[in-house]
Amino acid sequence: MGELRIGMVGYAFMGEAHSQAWRTVNRVYDLPVRARMSLIAGRDKANVAAAADRLGWDEHTTDWRDLINRDDIDLVDICTPGDSHAEIACAALAAGKHVLCEKPLANTVEEARAMVAAADAARAQGVRAMCGFTYRRVPAVTFMRRLIAEGRLGELRHVRAVYLQDWITDPEFPLVWRLQKDKAGSGALGDIGAHIIDMTQFVTGQAITGLSGLTETFVTERPLPSGDGAALGAATAGASSKGPVTVDDAALFVARLSGGAVATFEATRMATGRKNGLRIEVNGAKGSLAFDLERLNELEYYDGTLPGTELGFRRILVTEPDHPYLSAWWPTGHLIGYEHGFTHQARDLLEAIGTGTDPEPSFADALGVQLVLDAVERSAGSGAWVQV
Amino acid sequence: MGELRIGMVGYAFMGEAHSQAWRTVNRVYDLPVRARMSLIAGRDKANVAAAADRLGWDEHTTDWRDLINRDDIDLVDICTPGDSHAEIACAALAAGKHVLCEKPLANTVEEARAMVAAADAARAQGVRAMCGFTYRRVPAVTFMRRLIAEGRLGELRHVRAVYLQDWITDPEFPLVWRLQKDKAGSGALGDIGAHIIDMTQFVTGQAITGLSGLTETFVTERPLPSGDGAALGAATAGASSKGPVTVDDAALFVARLSGGAVATFEATRMATGRKNGLRIEVNGAKGSLAFDLERLNELEYYDGTLPGTELGFRRILVTEPDHPYLSAWWPTGHLIGYEHGFTHQARDLLEAIGTGTDPEPSFADALGVQLVLDAVERSAGSGAWVQV
Amino acid sequence: MGELRIGMVGYAFMGEAHSQAWRTVNRVYDLPVRARMSLIAGRDKANVAAAADRLGWDEHTTDWRDLINRDDIDLVDICTPGDSHAEIACAALAAGKHVLCEKPLANTVEEARAMVAAADAARAQGVRAMCGFTYRRVPAVTFMRRLIAEGRLGELRHVRAVYLQDWITDPEFPLVWRLQKDKAGSGALGDIGAHIIDMTQFVTGQAITGLSGLTETFVTERPLPSGDGAALGAATAGASSKGPVTVDDAALFVARLSGGAVATFEATRMATGRKNGLRIEVNGAKGSLAFDLERLNELEYYDGTLPGTELGFRRILVTEPDHPYLSAWWPTGHLIGYEHGFTHQARDLLEAIGTGTDPEPSFADALGVQLVLDAVERSAGSGAWVQV
Amino acid sequence: MGELRIGMVGYAFMGEAHSQAWRTVNRVYDLPVRARMSLIAGRDKANVAAAADRLGWDEHTTDWRDLINRDDIDLVDICTPGDSHAEIACAALAAGKHVLCEKPLANTVEEARAMVAAADAARAQGVRAMCGFTYRRVPAVTFMRRLIAEGRLGELRHVRAVYLQDWITDPEFPLVWRLQKDKAGSGALGDIGAHIIDMTQFVTGQAITGLSGLTETFVTERPLPSGDGAALGAATAGASSKGPVTVDDAALFVARLSGGAVATFEATRMATGRKNGLRIEVNGAKGSLAFDLERLNELEYYDGTLPGTELGFRRILVTEPDHPYLSAWWPTGHLIGYEHGFTHQARDLLEAIGTGTDPEPSFADALGVQLVLDAVERSAGSGAWVQV
Repeated sequence: MGELRIGMVGYAFMGEAHSQAWRTVNRVYDLPVRARMSLIAGRDKANVAAAADRLGWDEHTTDWRDLINRDDIDLVDICTPGDSHAEIACAALAAGKHVLCEKPLANTVEEARAMVAAADAARAQGVRAMCGFTYRRVPAVTFMRRLIAEGRLGELRHVRAVYLQDWITDPEFPLVWRLQKDKAGSGALGDIGAHIIDMTQFVTGQAITGLSGLTETFVTERPLPSGDGAALGAATAGASSKGPVTVDDAALFVARLSGGAVATFEATRMATGRKNGLRIEVNGAKGSLAFDLERLNELEYYDGTLPGTELGFRRILVTEPDHPYLSAWWPTGHLIGYEHGFTHQARDLLEAIGTGTDPEPSFADALGVQLVLDAVERSAGSGAWVQV
Repeated sequence: MGELRIGMVGYAFMGEAHSQAWRTVNRVYDLPVRARMSLIAGRDKANVAAAADRLGWDEHTTDWRDLINRDDIDLVDICTPGDSHAEIACAALAAGKHVLCEKPLANTVEEARAMVAAADAARAQGVRAMCGFTYRRVPAVTFMRRLIAEGRLGELRHVRAVYLQDWITDPEFPLVWRLQKDKAGSGALGDIGAHIIDMTQFVTGQAITGLSGLTETFVTERPLPSGDGAALGAATAGASSKGPVTVDDAALFVARLSGGAVATFEATRMATGRKNGLRIEVNGAKGSLAFDLERLNELEYYDGTLPGTELGFRRILVTEPDHPYLSAWWPTGHLIGYEHGFTHQARDLLEAIGTGTDPEPSFADALGVQLVLDAVERSAGSGAWVQV
Repeated sequence: MGELRIGMVGYAFMGEAHSQAWRTVNRVYDLPVRARMSLIAGRDKANVAAAADRLGWDEHTTDWRDLINRDDIDLVDICTPGDSHAEIACAALAAGKHVLCEKPLANTVEEARAMVAAADAARAQGVRAMCGFTYRRVPAVTFMRRLIAEGRLGELRHVRAVYLQDWITDPEFPLVWRLQKDKAGSGALGDIGAHIIDMTQFVTGQAITGLSGLTETFVTERPLPSGDGAALGAATAGASSKGPVTVDDAALFVARLSGGAVATFEATRMATGRKNGLRIEVNGAKGSLAFDLERLNELEYYDGTLPGTELGFRRILVTEPDHPYLSAWWPTGHLIGYEHGFTHQARDLLEAIGTGTDPEPSFADALGVQLVLDAVERSAGSGAWVQV
Repeated sequence: MGELRIGMVGYAFMGEAHSQAWRTVNRVYDLPVRARMSLIAGRDKANVAAAADRLGWDEHTTDWRDLINRDDIDLVDICTPGDSHAEIACAALAAGKHVLCEKPLANTVEEARAMVAAADAARAQGVRAMCGFTYRRVPAVTFMRRLIAEGRLGELRHVRAVYLQDWITDPEFPLVWRLQKDKAGSGALGDIGAHIIDMTQFVTGQAITGLSGLTETFVTERPLPSGDGAALGAATAGASSKGPVTVDDAALFVARLSGGAVATFEATRMATGRKNGLRIEVNGAKGSLAFDLERLNELEYYDGTLPGTELGFRRILVTEPDHPYLSAWWPTGHLIGYEHGFTHQARDLLEAIGTGTDPEPSFADALGVQLVLDAVERSAGSGAWVQV
């Protein structure tokens, strides 16, 4: 079995989640390639050294270009804020490195297009590129897609998708990078709205073709964070210094899908009490499916073909060995956690690289999400219906 | 205690629900006025006679004008399709009768405005008019409004409201009156969308000021019903004869509220598996509330002021004697049903008439809903953001 | 259609619930007999007069023997505490009156046996006797029995049944009649334990054959109630005067059923937070069913014959026209309340009387429950396994 | 930071779960000792070699005595069936090795007593022994204990605990070691009943003092497994060869606790549809708590001290940084899985060893569970109430 030498940029939340995946994936799946955690890059020398030790990387560097320049790195894993994705990814692809890039693919459509072009060029050389919409790999979500693809819901009519969090509800929460447009691109829209857009297109197999919506910033000024402000829960520098919030707190829109379904979407980080409330429901002519990330091992399925007095949503515990990705895990009824979306992503990427096939979602898929994000912002600006 | 002699028009679903309320209300509440079920009107002689006997009305007639013309009728209760509301209500009010009119108030804004004018004129004579948005009287909903009015949620930021049913999912379901624009005014929008619009404005105390949305008709042609087609589940006349569906199957929109909150709305009768899924959630800076009509005795409350490790949505069983309307009912934990929204409505109307005060929702409140329905149709037509 | 003239004893909680049923039943069901609310009896003259007026009875009396002695009473409905059931029921049956008697049938096995003998004797004269285990008539429970009787669960293996309330959790709650052995017979055991015993035997079609258990009284002394103390929430007379609690606060036991299943039972009025938590789950070789009275319109069904990846408990909203008793009620998805168990009971009793058949549960069925209650007390006393 | 060299026996389900914990624990927690996965022992040479490679152990052996005899092993982790626990644990402790032993501690009370004696002797030398009741380390369960210990529930009155699985429902499921008394000691009782006994004693801080119960074996004969039959889902050798099931399929009992509470317990592997349904509810005078392992990131808390109209069970998502063990994991709302009970166990054991304190649960705690298991079997045999 060959070894795939990974170089990763970033060691915050996503860096930890990806490290866990690289550390675990070959312990639970039989794969044609073994991941080696070779090199981690981060700007702060002490921090990246500590992260390398704690997370289990062989080496560390403060310059992400080392990942590109060194011959002994086969794949670059990008876990930084969106403003650096395009530069790193394009450099890595040009250097013949496989790339896994966190979502959203980029901060602008222009950047995303450049990345797709880079991926297309690299692909001709057998180099693979993948965008990290890990929620596709929650077994219940993958299973949802499978049931829909099999036609179990019939013609699709409705999607309702929300991603509700509440971690910036407090106006005193500091102005971290995710609240700054130059770093994050957008707010709830790109951070969590991107997930429900991708998930909708993934599970339905349909594209969002047009939409109309609004965005809102409820708290327009926040305390400046002390330190580098990278963390989700960074401390503030003191009440005296505030800065403007330059992204949306919430984004809401209605949409049409290519196969005729209609949909509502809402992404917000101000839904008090909802901690990680990604919920999606799809209604078809013959049945319905509903998922909630706060109960990620469950899937609700309404099979409209059963006898009339016995109809109901049933709570499937998606922990059977025959469920997607579950062959690797514990006996029936033993739950898995959030982190294994990343493990499954690593599995699929290693499988693709090992067998010389293209992983999904591709950069083009991710550009598709970016176009929808862009359309939401245009509609919110103009008040008009916008074609994607 | 005085007697209030009721004359009711219509004996289908709403007629049965209202009859139950008039029959029950004085048995469970102490009120200044006692309802007498005097006269029921309906077009079919045999049917109205049978309904009078079964539902407990003293007399019956095939001409609704008898309710207006007779001196021994004090209140006219209108339970017909929307196309006849304006004519009956205006005639009754002009004749000095109190009026209870089912929702939506009318099929057009123009009609609704005329009804408001008639109610205003009658009001000067001590005549009362009320529109039947009974879901305001589900105890959990009334309690929701009370908690919000007390400021328990702080500044409101989000509303998400859906009304999901599935009784026309089957394309062979016949073309009943609720699917015909001339009788029903609109489809899911006016039938059930009206409820979530009113409920939102009721519980938040805010008005919907602008919106953008779409409507969709998935099944554009349906079998003509046999018989009069008044029933929800009428049989079809045979596959050979079909007619066009002239109303929406679904309506979806995003909106802004007068107090700064943003909202999503969806009304559909094609959400397979959702039988009576009216759900509303309100998020404020300090807490959240969520309600589901399929569990109408429950209210979910998230009190964000509790200690951090103990936060969570709590399921309040709204069956305590101190909850709204509950003093009349069974011991704690013993559920009430759908029908008692109507009983509570009758209670409040009798109380208002007995004490000479104005019942709510007024015709003006109901016009407010009508204006939103109209705005949704305009936005769906133009694709543009529309001010209400 | 003939008229059945009802005489009822008692006007507290059960009297109100039964009155509701008699008032409603012919309005929603087509039946061969029409109930007339003729005469209500109660000990306090002013109270019974007020109750007659409010609940809708033609006449009232302070002497229950009037119900027996008058020729114009066809059925005696007994809604008093258990200590008077035997005397009233036996007198009524001897006088040729049909009897509906609230549960538990009696306070002792001896009384219950006498009542069964009286019912058997009367039965030969075409006189009907029924015991009021109304929860059998919650549609979800009736449906549960039907599915089990059809063999949908296969061989039954487990029952777990609890009835959890919390209305005497507070040690200052007064010593009402339900806490006095001479009036109530027993505590949680007979009051609510009787329900889960009957329900288990009803839905499984199996008898409890042996058991082992315990009873406990957590609060052994309570304030004496002011006034007559009949109400569930009676005020106390003052802290100075207390009396002994002579019944159990809780009863717990394990049991074997005649068909081979094993079971756990728990009845308590000290389960803080559980308001009316009657829950029953039955597991069979091919499937399972679960019910919760706090969500009485729902039934959870696990059909083990479905494909392995799609297995799950499904929440059936038991509001379809084809569900038991539902033809009378509202459209799909519109809930019914606690009170209509009584309406359904009235329906079945009128149907039985009208068609000359025996209603269920019979006094013999209710004696079967009484024997189990007795066995629990014997086992709790001796610590030994007891045959029923 | 010192290194603790682990030697583990067994590589099936528990061996995989423990390996995961040793691999992960120092990556997420700051601890005084670092675990090294030194040596794994198993009887089959090829299998143990494969397991060592896959799970990440430095070396492997087919003789568990190597773990005892080698000087470079500091801790012996016992993941074998119960029949070998006593021999291995006593040998390891005598050799001065720390011991982590899977539950139940032993197959008999006699063995368990010997193990406690060995642990006591070793303790004097600074050697630590711990039993693996990992469910104590599910954050919601640890938090439950904390709230109870703080007096939040007041005086405890009720516990109801069930552990429901269904993996042997099918009579054709083979006769694996867990169904053989000589290897497993008992059936559902020791396998999963032990968990709810320990959890009850852990969260309440009270001991089970007496009980009465029954056991049942529904399927008394099963196909012999092909191969070694160690796996939960082993294939059968063919219908022709069957063997007797020598353990219980289910165990049910009622009990009294040292602090005055009463309790019901049920453990079964025949509860069709319940996959891993460990549920425990505790009711106290001031509040209640409820937990379900199938939703292991949630805890239901009823705080009876809140205002009367706002009472309800609230669903706490136990994913806040201030919840037990959560500082190591993902942001609020991001779930963890079953496996991290083991990670938390490893954390606490390393912490205890590093700081020279005694880990919990001790062998004495586990003997306490064993005594209850024994009492259940005695009561099931005699039908009598048994003191523990």
